[in-house]
Parts: sequence; C-alpha cells; structure tokens
Amino acid sequence: MRFLVGTIGPTQSVFAVSEGMAVNLTEAVPAIGRDLAALTASDDLMAQAKEIAETRTGDAVPVPAITPALPIARPPSVLCLGLNYIEHIKEGGYDIPDYPAMFIRTPNSIMAAGAPMVRPACSETLDYEAEMMIIIGKGGRHISEETALEHVFGYTVFNDGSVREYQRKTHQWTPGKNFDDTGAIGPYVVTPDELPEGGKGLKIESRVGSEILQSSNTSNMIWSVAQTIAIMSQFKTLEVGDHIALGTPPGVGHAKKPGPRWLRPGETVDIEIEGIGICSSPIVAEESMTKTEAAE
Amino acid sequence: MRFLVGTIGPTQSVFAVSEGMAVNLTEAVPAIGRDLAALTASDDLMAQAKEIAETRTGDAVPVPAITPALPIARPPSVLCLGLNYIEHIKEGGYDIPDYPAMFIRTPNSIMAAGAPMVRPACSETLDYEAEMMIIIGKGGRHISEETALEHVFGYTVFNDGSVREYQRKTHQWTPGKNFDDTGAIGPYVVTPDELPEGGKGLKIESRVGSEILQSSNTSNMIWSVAQTIAIMSQFKTLEVGDHIALGTPPGVGHAKKPGPRWLRPGETVDIEIEGIGICSSPIVAEESMTKTEAAE
Repeated sequence: MRFLVGTIGPTQSVFAVSEGMAVNLTEAVPAIGRDLAALTASDDLMAQAKEIAETRTGDAVPVPAITPALPIARPPSVLCLGLNYIEHIKEGGYDIPDYPAMFIRTPNSIMAAGAPMVRPACSETLDYEAEMMIIIGKGGRHISEETALEHVFGYTVFNDGSVREYQRKTHQWTPGKNFDDTGAIGPYVVTPDELPEGGKGLKIESRVGSEILQSSNTSNMIWSVAQTIAIMSQFKTLEVGDHIALGTPPGVGHAKKPGPRWLRPGETVDIEIEGIGICSSPIVAEESMTKTEAAE
Repeated sequence: MRFLVGTIGPTQSVFAVSEGMAVNLTEAVPAIGRDLAALTASDDLMAQAKEIAETRTGDAVPVPAITPALPIARPPSVLCLGLNYIEHIKEGGYDIPDYPAMFIRTPNSIMAAGAPMVRPACSETLDYEAEMMIIIGKGGRHISEETALEHVFGYTVFNDGSVREYQRKTHQWTPGKNFDDTGAIGPYVVTPDELPEGGKGLKIESRVGSEILQSSNTSNMIWSVAQTIAIMSQFKTLEVGDHIALGTPPGVGHAKKPGPRWLRPGETVDIEIEGIGICSSPIVAEESMTKTEAAE
C-alpha cells in the first residue's frame, strides 16, 4: 500500500493512494487516527485499511487536494546513518568506515514534504541530502540481519537538510543536523510488498528545478536496510514508529566543484526515490518568516 | 520545591519532598498527573502543588517507601553536552573547544534512579559520567543568555552511562551513548529557587561504595546552564520537558590510571550533586537478565 498523511481543509487524515487518487481511511475507520502511529502498531487496522482502500475507491479525492503532514507527528526516535555511500564519504574527506556513523534528530528538526525548509539566519550553509528512510513496524532488540526486514513498516523519502557550518563546529554533528524545520519527510509511505526487497535498486536523486544535484541508486549503500536494523538494535530497542534514515549519495552542496552550492531562499529542492515518490521543500529564509510562522 | 516521581505499590505519583517525607501531589490534584510533564507546563498546577506540599504534611510518607520513576517518562528530547569540564577534555585526548560538542539520547537509553544500569553483553566498557541535568519549563527559540535561566523548571542528577567501545567506533558518539538502560536520571528534581543561580558552585561526585571516582564542582563547567540554553536554542526550539545534560568532570573510568576502571555487575554507582541528591544505579549484566526484564 501507499499511504499519505495530510489535510483537506482543517482535518488531518490518513489516505491510501492509488493512481493519483486518495481514499480517506480515517473517515472510514476513526481508530486509524490522524497519522500512521496506530497503523504501524496494529495488524488488524492494517487489514481494515487494505479493505477500505480496495472497496471505497468511489469516494477517492485527487492527491493534489491534500496537503501532506508528517507520516507520524512525533516519532519515538529519528535515527540517521551519516556515511553510507562510498563516493559521499570520499567527497566529505572521511575514511571508509567499518561501522556506520550515526546521529539523532529531534522532533523539532523534522517537517512534512511540501513544508518550508528554513535556512537559518545565522548561516547560509544549508545543504540537501537525498535519503531513503524506513519506518519501523515491529519493535525489537538484537534483531538478526536475516529477520530484520520483517520489522519494516514502510519506506519513505527523506531530505536530511544540514547546516554544514554548525555540523562541523565540533566533531559531533548534532547542531547542524538539528536546526528547526530542516529535515523533510514524505509524503508517501510505501509498504515493503510494493518495492524490491530491502528497497534495493531504486534510483535516488535530488534536484532544484532541472538541475540534478545528486543521482545514485540505493544499491550503492554500504549498509543495507537489514544490516542497519541489525546494527542499531544491538544497542537500542527499536520501537514501533522509529524512523531510520539511510544516508546520502555523493553530490551534496558543500562538496560541489566549483562550489559550494548552498540552498537559497526561493528555490525548491526535490528528492525523488524511484517507486516511492518526490519530497519537495521550498527554501525559506528564517528572517523572512513572521514570529508566528517561525514558532510553529 | 523538591519533586520526586515514583511508585508506592502499583501506583505512580508525583511527590513533594521535605526533610525525608513525601506528600502525594497527584492524589490531592489528579490533574498533576503521574510524572512532571503537566507541572512543567502549568504555573497554575505549580501553585497548587506548592500549597499542597505546605498544607498536607500530615499525610506525608517516608521517602524510602517510594520507588523512583523517571521525572518525565518520555521527554521530548534529551540533549547532552559532551565536553564541558577542561580536565575531562584533556583526559579524553580532545582539544579545548570553542563550541560545545553535543549528542542526543533516545528514550530507550534512559531510566530512573535506582533502576539497573545494564552492562551490555557485547562490551565490558561501561563507564559512569556524573552530570548536572536541567529540565526545561518554558520553551523557546533564540533565548538570550540573560533570560535563559527563566526557562529552567528544575535541576536533577544524571549518570550519562557510556559504552566507550561503541562511543568510539566512529567519530559520532551516538551508539555508545544510546545503549538501552544506561542513562540514569533523578530521583529528585529541585526548583531553581532552592539552589544557587544557574546551579553553580555545587559539589559533584561519583562513587562506587567508598571509592571516589569523580569529584569536582559545577563551577568548573566551561558552558554555564544559561550559555548552554542560549547555544542550543540557536538551532532548536527548546520544548517544555526537554532534558539537557551538562557534561561530566574528570575521573571517568576509561581514563583512570592504572585503568581502565569499568563498571562491573554487582557494583552500585552513586552520583551525588550537593543540594540536589544522589542517583544510584546497580550495575547488572545483560546476560543475567531474563528476556522479560531486558525488554521492559
């Protein structure tokens, strides 16, 4: 299935999307709730969602009528792989590692596809990172690589927007990865049965208009989805609803030559993963936002 | 005020503690809830809590009857300073920074004072870190150093238990700081009016029995509480309930000479901060836990 969480007018719902049309699942089964939190946690609700998606197509609305929201408003954790494509590691000046670099994003740093990505007033070094992201549907600790894919609820698109100046203020990347409203997620969450095993072999690209900034394939990841789940669950109990970002291919703005190629207010950056969708983010300068907007 | 969140029998409540006796605030005002989330967010509830604490002393129970729980079961974020005492930076082999190193802990990695700290089966390099921790009571972005202390709800004690082998597998510390049940918080949360401004000048110590492992003073921190809030709120909107750990003084186990001095199952590590309290954690080997305990 292909899920879309979003609003029509004031009401947020979960939709099932097929061929550009969206069936409102929340309206049909209120227990599904207003984001994917309930669906990720319940096989029974998933079965109901599937049935509704297939039978209520007469009530479907066109996808463009829906404004995307976050798939899960407050994920328990957002865990990210830092370096997972060889050529991106080289362009950043890092050694090829034998264990993945990981960092964590706070809830304030993420926002829905389509929402503004905010270039902070304190730095112009805002950069894009196209990434595949998974949402955990079955929690656990010490998950083996062999069974890891059973823990994936779905796949989505992530733009790991990074303020490079702050990412490299010290050896720990946390500040540069945690500016408010810099990590775009969505809009679609696609269940594993609709994609190749482990999300492998999918084209992944970032673009501003017709300018292709990154272009690679998810098969180029060093650590696969299954390996990443196994590695992370060695230290942490993965929870239902946890988001895991799988790192970005080469072509980021700070490494462009001639460069750097920072994101500028007025541009819109698109991240596309084959078979999942496009995550678009208009870049907005913090200075241009009203105080109310900035606090939202 | 001095708060203690904990259970007597099956029921978790918020208590106000004075001279070893605890008044059950939740029982008196159910809206206070079962942890500090509601109190951090409401001046009105705080006023009611204060009145109850002063008037219902006849119903108080002795503190040892209460098993501590986390002050807030699911803090929005747990942000940590990595290097904030000069002598600890030197013992770790790092340069003195001009900006703080920061990392984030997930909800799975924290637990209440008194609960087992779990030494993972995969590594014996479990280390203690005595830290002061604050809980945010008033959110905000771009908070100035001058007004920052108005945003502090209270001070507590933190043991930033770290699995050094995994902390240093790459340049990013995330895995070593995020093993399940390694970060102990509490048991007391003390409001700012009961302590020196910014929590300065307090003795901070870690011990196993009579063995003093760390002994310093919170005045030795490079970045004060106010500066830390200002720095973090430059990139992130601080939320009510966010926890911020302020880094550890010298004397950690990995740098002991002769050493290293890892925490061993059967030991109990105590972190004490003058005027706040003692956070004790019995060390338990993951291998010795039942599957049910490990999954809790």
